[in-house]
Amino acid sequence: MRRLDKSIEALVNSYDSYGLVNHSGGGLPSRESIEDIISSLDELLFPGFWEKGELDHHNLRLITGEKANHLARELIREVEKSIGFAIRQGRKLDEISRDYGGSHGGCRAAAELVVEDFFEEIPKILAALALDMEAAFRGDPAAKSTAEVILSYPGFQAIVVHRLAHFFWTRQVPLIPRMMSEFVHSRTGIDIHPGAQIGESFFIDHGTGVVIGETTVIGKDVKLYQGVTLGALSVRKEEADKKRHPTIEDGVTIYANATILGGQTVIGRGSILGGSVWITESVPPDSTVYIRAGDLVIKPRK
Amino acid sequence: MRRLDKSIEALVNSYDSYGLVNHSGGGLPSRESIEDIISSLDELLFPGFWEKGELDHHNLRLITGEKANHLARELIREVEKSIGFAIRQGRKLDEISRDYGGSHGGCRAAAELVVEDFFEEIPKILAALALDMEAAFRGDPAAKSTAEVILSYPGFQAIVVHRLAHFFWTRQVPLIPRMMSEFVHSRTGIDIHPGAQIGESFFIDHGTGVVIGETTVIGKDVKLYQGVTLGALSVRKEEADKKRHPTIEDGVTIYANATILGGQTVIGRGSILGGSVWITESVPPDSTVYIRAGDLVIKPRK
Amino acid sequence: MRRLDKSIEALVNSYDSYGLVNHSGGGLPSRESIEDIISSLDELLFPGFWEKGELDHHNLRLITGEKANHLARELIREVEKSIGFAIRQGRKLDEISRDYGGSHGGCRAAAELVVEDFFEEIPKILAALALDMEAAFRGDPAAKSTAEVILSYPGFQAIVVHRLAHFFWTRQVPLIPRMMSEFVHSRTGIDIHPGAQIGESFFIDHGTGVVIGETTVIGKDVKLYQGVTLGALSVRKEEADKKRHPTIEDGVTIYANATILGGQTVIGRGSILGGSVWITESVPPDSTVYIRAGDLVIKPRK
Amino acid sequence: MRRLDKSIEALVNSYDSYGLVNHSGGGLPSRESIEDIISSLDELLFPGFWEKGELDHHNLRLITGEKANHLARELIREVEKSIGFAIRQGRKLDEISRDYGGSHGGCRAAAELVVEDFFEEIPKILAALALDMEAAFRGDPAAKSTAEVILSYPGFQAIVVHRLAHFFWTRQVPLIPRMMSEFVHSRTGIDIHPGAQIGESFFIDHGTGVVIGETTVIGKDVKLYQGVTLGALSVRKEEADKKRHPTIEDGVTIYANATILGGQTVIGRGSILGGSVWITESVPPDSTVYIRAGDLVIKPRK
Amino acid sequence: MRRLDKSIEALVNSYDSYGLVNHSGGGLPSRESIEDIISSLDELLFPGFWEKGELDHHNLRLITGEKANHLARELIREVEKSIGFAIRQGRKLDEISRDYGGSHGGCRAAAELVVEDFFEEIPKILAALALDMEAAFRGDPAAKSTAEVILSYPGFQAIVVHRLAHFFWTRQVPLIPRMMSEFVHSRTGIDIHPGAQIGESFFIDHGTGVVIGETTVIGKDVKLYQGVTLGALSVRKEEADKKRHPTIEDGVTIYANATILGGQTVIGRGSILGGSVWITESVPPDSTVYIRAGDLVIKPRK
Amino acid sequence: MRRLDKSIEALVNSYDSYGLVNHSGGGLPSRESIEDIISSLDELLFPGFWEKGELDHHNLRLITGEKANHLARELIREVEKSIGFAIRQGRKLDEISRDYGGSHGGCRAAAELVVEDFFEEIPKILAALALDMEAAFRGDPAAKSTAEVILSYPGFQAIVVHRLAHFFWTRQVPLIPRMMSEFVHSRTGIDIHPGAQIGESFFIDHGTGVVIGETTVIGKDVKLYQGVTLGALSVRKEEADKKRHPTIEDGVTIYANATILGGQTVIGRGSILGGSVWITESVPPDSTVYIRAGDLVIKPRK
Repeated sequence: MRRLDKSIEALVNSYDSYGLVNHSGGGLPSRESIEDIISSLDELLFPGFWEKGELDHHNLRLITGEKANHLARELIREVEKSIGFAIRQGRKLDEISRDYGGSHGGCRAAAELVVEDFFEEIPKILAALALDMEAAFRGDPAAKSTAEVILSYPGFQAIVVHRLAHFFWTRQVPLIPRMMSEFVHSRTGIDIHPGAQIGESFFIDHGTGVVIGETTVIGKDVKLYQGVTLGALSVRKEEADKKRHPTIEDGVTIYANATILGGQTVIGRGSILGGSVWITESVPPDSTVYIRAGDLVIKPRK
Repeated sequence: MRRLDKSIEALVNSYDSYGLVNHSGGGLPSRESIEDIISSLDELLFPGFWEKGELDHHNLRLITGEKANHLARELIREVEKSIGFAIRQGRKLDEISRDYGGSHGGCRAAAELVVEDFFEEIPKILAALALDMEAAFRGDPAAKSTAEVILSYPGFQAIVVHRLAHFFWTRQVPLIPRMMSEFVHSRTGIDIHPGAQIGESFFIDHGTGVVIGETTVIGKDVKLYQGVTLGALSVRKEEADKKRHPTIEDGVTIYANATILGGQTVIGRGSILGGSVWITESVPPDSTVYIRAGDLVIKPRK
Repeated sequence: MRRLDKSIEALVNSYDSYGLVNHSGGGLPSRESIEDIISSLDELLFPGFWEKGELDHHNLRLITGEKANHLARELIREVEKSIGFAIRQGRKLDEISRDYGGSHGGCRAAAELVVEDFFEEIPKILAALALDMEAAFRGDPAAKSTAEVILSYPGFQAIVVHRLAHFFWTRQVPLIPRMMSEFVHSRTGIDIHPGAQIGESFFIDHGTGVVIGETTVIGKDVKLYQGVTLGALSVRKEEADKKRHPTIEDGVTIYANATILGGQTVIGRGSILGGSVWITESVPPDSTVYIRAGDLVIKPRK
Repeated sequence: MRRLDKSIEALVNSYDSYGLVNHSGGGLPSRESIEDIISSLDELLFPGFWEKGELDHHNLRLITGEKANHLARELIREVEKSIGFAIRQGRKLDEISRDYGGSHGGCRAAAELVVEDFFEEIPKILAALALDMEAAFRGDPAAKSTAEVILSYPGFQAIVVHRLAHFFWTRQVPLIPRMMSEFVHSRTGIDIHPGAQIGESFFIDHGTGVVIGETTVIGKDVKLYQGVTLGALSVRKEEADKKRHPTIEDGVTIYANATILGGQTVIGRGSILGGSVWITESVPPDSTVYIRAGDLVIKPRK
Repeated sequence: MRRLDKSIEALVNSYDSYGLVNHSGGGLPSRESIEDIISSLDELLFPGFWEKGELDHHNLRLITGEKANHLARELIREVEKSIGFAIRQGRKLDEISRDYGGSHGGCRAAAELVVEDFFEEIPKILAALALDMEAAFRGDPAAKSTAEVILSYPGFQAIVVHRLAHFFWTRQVPLIPRMMSEFVHSRTGIDIHPGAQIGESFFIDHGTGVVIGETTVIGKDVKLYQGVTLGALSVRKEEADKKRHPTIEDGVTIYANATILGGQTVIGRGSILGGSVWITESVPPDSTVYIRAGDLVIKPRK
Repeated sequence: MRRLDKSIEALVNSYDSYGLVNHSGGGLPSRESIEDIISSLDELLFPGFWEKGELDHHNLRLITGEKANHLARELIREVEKSIGFAIRQGRKLDEISRDYGGSHGGCRAAAELVVEDFFEEIPKILAALALDMEAAFRGDPAAKSTAEVILSYPGFQAIVVHRLAHFFWTRQVPLIPRMMSEFVHSRTGIDIHPGAQIGESFFIDHGTGVVIGETTVIGKDVKLYQGVTLGALSVRKEEADKKRHPTIEDGVTIYANATILGGQTVIGRGSILGGSVWITESVPPDSTVYIRAGDLVIKPRK
């Protein structure tokens, strides 16, 4: 195993040649922790749905206290690391402190503030998710119960995690929101950037392949199917701060594999976009858009 | 952490405001258990393929007995919870009992009957999977062995779980079949509703983005590629009991990203549907369908 | 539980009827081990990014030695099983030995050689991944840091695993490369066959639904979006040894859901393929290809 | 394995022949849970001593809240089972309810009361343990620090668990106190019956083989060495309710392997009992007791 | 870490210098497995006592089948390794085969026979343990219930494991019986050699420090207290095959820390030996033996 | 659960009142880590004896490298915490640095030096243990093989851990040696202070209750039985630095429950001390010491 020893030596020496190694000071949020945090949030938001055994109803308060204390602790640790990362990336502490409500206590105090705000927000997030669940149940003829939605709908899982991740995005916590949304992307095939603004009663059916970009704005009662892209026309780094992704107004339905591109593109309220359409310009309210018939050749096999 | 304590209080109080909490009596099937059950079924069906160590051939009977007793126990528990859920949703016990062979012993006895039937069915399911495996090996030039199919083909994983989930669907066990199919959807990107009827020697290649709806009927020797949708034209809740998804006859091949919609749409036997086609009407047997050439603009970049 | 006992009996008896059971001699690589190996490789390649706790910088050498020794051991075991499988499939030992540098020591010695070579290769792979990371950061306006790329970009995960799996593919180790690429396919929805040849600075954005076939050749600085298929026109088993998948030259960008098929199809350097295009013939260098406008019907909803 | 199947059949049939099977209604406290509870109590009482990593001082409140909520939940469950067991053994519910403060809510409510009382007691128990720790440090010349006492003194572990178990004993909770004391007996070789009354500043050095009976009464500042027995003269079942074990007054030291027996035996304050003495009658205060010299034969080996 | 690398080199090189390394062929029984086996046996023998959750009574048969199949498998593996060890130690296979009922199938077949015999024996062992449990309950005034005996009496745990280990001892399986008895010695401080023959209704109270030698013979209704030694007078290797330890007839009680030595020493039926006695010669039936009074000096402390 | 909240509040407030909480700076060695370290050392010293599966002989070097790197890392961390503790207890860093070879790099560098020295010492420790193992095998007629000694002799486990712990004691590392010896005390009932000096070929049979004090000196070829105490006559804190425990010269055998006390007490070479003797003065070489006969009363039971 002499050759192995040499290779280890070479590897350790090469670590610093690339930006691929993190041994700058304070650590990064851990992917494993983010996944644990999302599982814990699922259990906190939906008691009785995720436990392996039965929910112990008599102990609901003890259980909730235990979970919430644990979660707060885990979140504070990961958020503190994220804020530390932001500072190492060049942001100033007092600038960040203003974001987090004027704290002067450094990363730790800022992290505590964010997490306390987050827990205050949770009942509102739960209220929004109740509407999403109703939208899913109404929107899918195959849904037999709302329990089925919670337990098995990938589109519902995606919006649960999005509404949580979006909170951290709005508080300018780096890394964590993206790690959260990527986690649920991995699980569901639905890729919602945590920056996207999504209104009430949102439903994605099937969902694999859906992409919703960072500056997308979505109204109420919108429904998407698998493979829908709400994307950008330009991907130039210089335009990172512009609105690059479309606006979808209230009550719009977009069928499978449709592509809507561009920050100025607005799909007017109540419109229906047919499957596989390719749209780069705005559509007036209450439109129906579909692919023109007659594009196929059908002939007998030789 | 006073603010945290208040938020916990608010959360516990808000639990009952939404339908998002399950603390009605008897519990729900657990997602974690369903995943364990599928892993155990994989090990039961394909001994020697999923064990981390080597299969202990001398002990095959002891191992199989141990696994099967364990699985039966886990399945009975989850099925019992599902039947209890059905009753709480308004179904009558004797109506369910008839479904499960006339048992008069309540949810538990009904669950035992279903699970015993399921174990009786397993050798037949294994026979069907042997044909699916052969179809995958024949259908993919890149496949070097049938072992490779079992160990690494997502399309094969999807049909394994579908054939298991479909059994529980036909016995009207709620929740469990959907949770099973959603589990494998999450793993493979292939979304087959457990209600779909699928014939022998079925193969999906690559598979990400495939959607097969609840009332789809698929014949023998059918082959699908990634992104194929077999979907509905209408998603009105009132039509939940109608046939909403297409019929694919024997020997049909459907290439990537094709979309076939509608409960009256029949793709005739032996037909080949080209990639990305969009079909909402029936296609006669032995047809070839493809996108008309000339739809693209090709020009030099400025 | 008499019925259960009978079903177990029937199952054990039926095991040998199908090719679905592996109790031939020497075992197969284990999926669980392959997943562990990939996690260990992630930790070896990117210290400080995947640990749940903070990286212990003082111990970097001890940690690297520990991880590398462990990994080598796990890899040797799995590679040995793979080579044993190849021999049971009919390959000759001396023929394999030549592949692995003329060893005469059987499967074990061959496995050790492959794994030692692999460790020698790791610094080169790391260098290539550093370029891929840069490409991802440059290519996505939403990327705020390279740390974000490592921690949360599915396209980066896919190329990490591909470059590792491709090494084993070139050394003709069966099963393992496919199991590796299928693992990351499951996680990301990106399906890259381990045989594909991919140049420097490669980036896939979003990625769900991407398929890259076995004989694909990709140049430098290529960028793909979700849903892109680089596939075959023919899937006849007889053509398994031919080049069946396209060649993508340097500097090409291919937008979402585009399909490029055929082993003779060459996308010339610097070309841009628009979203959803369907291409089965070569495209000259520096072309822009897009779907012709005017294919949609837009009208008011009734 | 036919013989095995028969043996299983025989075993299941024989279960009911003996009192060795518990399938009467409501379950028993679980030994594994009791062990977990003691570990959790150790961590709750001595933060910073038992954690594998460093104590996160900033989060001491969150951690304590999390641990205490968890512990309360576990304890309520086990205590509820114990009370249920007492009722099945023939005690009346209202009689038990009076014990637990007049509750009329059944086993569950009684269990909650006991556990709430227990948590109220914890600061007092902690105060007592602080004195025990000081006594150990003073009493052993080999002790270099009080941290060493907490981390490695079996005698200290034994008194920690005893003070906790004794609380439950005084509240007439069955089984749990004995299971707690047996757990620490197994770890340390020190067997203190949970009924024993033990005063402040108690120290046992080395400890293996110490036995302290149910009705023992021990004053303040008492010190014991390994192998000391404080036992009964009679072990007749009829005398179970009598004081059967000795009284040890304040300031007594008892050296290794001494045996003191009998419920009427009182070792007067300040006495010193030498190693291996055998005492069945009272000793006046401030006595020194030792084995008479001259009992040994010393001669050269042949 | 150069020095570490050198030390590792030196260690690996030194492995073969001493008999402390086992890399001869076939493996040894694993201590961890033996501990798992004992836990599994506890759960098999006493359903409802050791489970962390409640016993699922409806599934008692499924659970028992699962446990028994698992145990049989584990036991066969460990017993096979033990028999292999015996053969490497110089015993002949056919000689061993005769022991195990004339099998001609090698270690594996012999192991299967032993384990099948063991399972046949289990109901008898359970019957004996029921009597031991009764003896413990009768013999300790502090025992409030037989459940308490099962859950918390170290003397009962010791006899449970002894009766199991003794079976393997009588079948001349090497290593395993000693590993079993050492495991329970570690837990309870009670050291019973697996060769000892122990009659019905045996009880050890407290138990720490009890030693019972290999050739001890104990009758029915015998009761021992902590620290009792039933030992040898000579420990010469040449006498390994002789009866070296005493015989204790029916109905004898031996109090704490008594020492009885010698293979010819017989404690006659019904005798009572007082605490701390030292006996090397036989005692007639129905004797009482105790330490002569007057050996102590009691005087005031200066 | 209002009362619980109050109790938590009270507990957190009371933490600082006693010396029972460690939240001073740098952490303490963790008991769990010490136990892991001892397990790892067992596996490092005796390859093939402790693994649950079979030892992979081909990979002995890789395994040893992996284990040793891991152990070094764990040890450095715990030793660093111990040295930090010593400094907080008032020792000076440079004084400690001299102890550890003149290092000027702080706790971390000192810890590395100690651990590197420890690894250099391991082959010598292994050599000593080989002699201890031989002594055990020779000394117990019941021992059938040296493998049995390694796998199941508590006396052997105790000397293994002692020889390791003693190294750290000689290097003045605080806490860790005591935690190691207490761990094995808990397992075996044998309490050897890590400061004791013990010569070659040492054997303790059965062992429960053995106590060997801090300043004990033991020669070669010494054999002890269960319950032997090598203790102090005075336990005054002021005498902590004196020799308080006896000297046992080469070739001495001490039978069960003997007590030898005092720092000036020397048991001359080749002597045999009978069971239960009580010795506080020196015994000349080659003596036999036993309890005078005639101390017992034997009479018929009434």
